[in-house]
Amino acid sequence: MKIAVVLSGCGVFDGSEINEVVLSLFELEKQSINYEVFAQDKNQKHVINHYNQSSDNFTRNILFESSRIVRGNIKKLSELNYNTFDGLLIPGGFGVAKNLSNLAFKNGHFTIDIEFKKIMTNFIGKPSGYLCIAPMLIPHVYRNAKCTIGNDPEMAKIINNLGGIHVNCSANDIVIDEKNRLITTPGYMMTNSRVEVHLGIEKLVSKLKNI
Amino acid sequence: MKIAVVLSGCGVFDGSEINEVVLSLFELEKQSINYEVFAQDKNQKHVINHYNQSSDNFTRNILFESSRIVRGNIKKLSELNYNTFDGLLIPGGFGVAKNLSNLAFKNGHFTIDIEFKKIMTNFIGKPSGYLCIAPMLIPHVYRNAKCTIGNDPEMAKIINNLGGIHVNCSANDIVIDEKNRLITTPGYMMTNSRVEVHLGIEKLVSKLKNI
Repeated sequence: MKIAVVLSGCGVFDGSEINEVVLSLFELEKQSINYEVFAQDKNQKHVINHYNQSSDNFTRNILFESSRIVRGNIKKLSELNYNTFDGLLIPGGFGVAKNLSNLAFKNGHFTIDIEFKKIMTNFIGKPSGYLCIAPMLIPHVYRNAKCTIGNDPEMAKIINNLGGIHVNCSANDIVIDEKNRLITTPGYMMTNSRVEVHLGIEKLVSKLKNI
Repeated sequence: MKIAVVLSGCGVFDGSEINEVVLSLFELEKQSINYEVFAQDKNQKHVINHYNQSSDNFTRNILFESSRIVRGNIKKLSELNYNTFDGLLIPGGFGVAKNLSNLAFKNGHFTIDIEFKKIMTNFIGKPSGYLCIAPMLIPHVYRNAKCTIGNDPEMAKIINNLGGIHVNCSANDIVIDEKNRLITTPGYMMTNSRVEVHLGIEKLVSKLKNI
C-alpha cells in the first residue's frame, strides 16, 4: 500500500499542523505503509508569527516550508500521479483553510483550490484520511459523506449545509464512512495532547489498510 | 518531574530537527513528564531552503520559528529559571551546530553560545537528555562524560579530543552516563526511520525518570 500525503506549509497558523504531520508519518512507517509527500509550489496566503500571532509581510512558499518537516523528501503537488497511489492522507492546520482552500476567509462560502480539488476528486473510491480541519473540504467532493471536525457547531453546520453528515468525535477516535472509504479524526480541533492526537491518528492509519 | 526543552529553530538544516522535537514532546506527555519549551530570541545564523538546499538572504528569529513546532507554547531562553526544573532535553538538528554553537562553522574548534552554555552548566547534576548532534556540546561542559552521536568517526574524534568519551550507538538505543546523569541517542544521525528515532527517544525519556 502506498499513500500520498499532501502538506500545506509548516506551522499550525499558516500551514500544516506540524505535530499531526510527524505523528501521521510515524504511524504510516510503524504500520509499514509506504508514502510520498507533496505540496503546492506556490506562495502561502499568510505568514503568521507563531510566537506573537502577528502577520509577516514577507511571503513564503508552501513547498519550501512543507519540506522542513520532511527533511526535503517532498515533491511538487503537480507531480502527484494518483494512479500510482492507493490512498490519500491530509493533515490539518490553517494551511488547509488558507492554502488548500479559502475556508479561513470565506467561511460557509469557501471553495477548494482548483489543483487540490482535482487531486481529491481523483482519489474518490480509494482509502482517504483527513485530519483536524481538513474534513471541512470533504462535502465539496463527496456525496453524503460522514466525517468529523470534532464538535464545533459552526463548522459542523457548514459541513451539513454542503451536504455532508457531521458526526461529533473526540481526538482519540475516528469517524468512518465505509461507503466513501473515508476516515476522519479531529486532532488538535479537540485537544492539546499529543497522546490523544496520536491515538486518533493511529486508528485512522490502521483503518486506511482495511476500509 | 519537570523538564526544560530548548529548541534552536524549525527545520533540520537551520534549526531543530522537527521530527525529533515532536517525538520527544510526545514521549514526555506519554510518560507523564511535565515540560516547558524555550528558545533564544535572536536571529538564526542561516536560513536554508529545505527543498533545494539554497541559502536565503532573509533572516529568521530562532524563537519565532521554534514556536511553529509547539503552536506558540514557548518562552524566551532568558526566562528559563533552572531552579524550577528537574532536567533538560535538547533535540538535534543543525540549529544546535549553527545557533546553539558554531560547530557547523568551526568544527573541532567550536564554542557554545554563551547564554546556552550557562544553561547547560546550571543543569549539571540534573538528568539531561541530548539527541542527534546535540551531544557534541557535552564535553565542553561535563568532565569525562560518556555520550553518543552515532558512529561518525570525525565527530567522535572531536568529542574525545575535548575530553569526552564517545560510544557508538544505533538510533534505536541510548548511551547512559550514570555519574553525570546524561542520556544520549543518535536520532537522525543514524537513520531516516521515524520508528527507530522514536525507539531511541522513548528509551531516553524513560531513563530521564530514573537516572
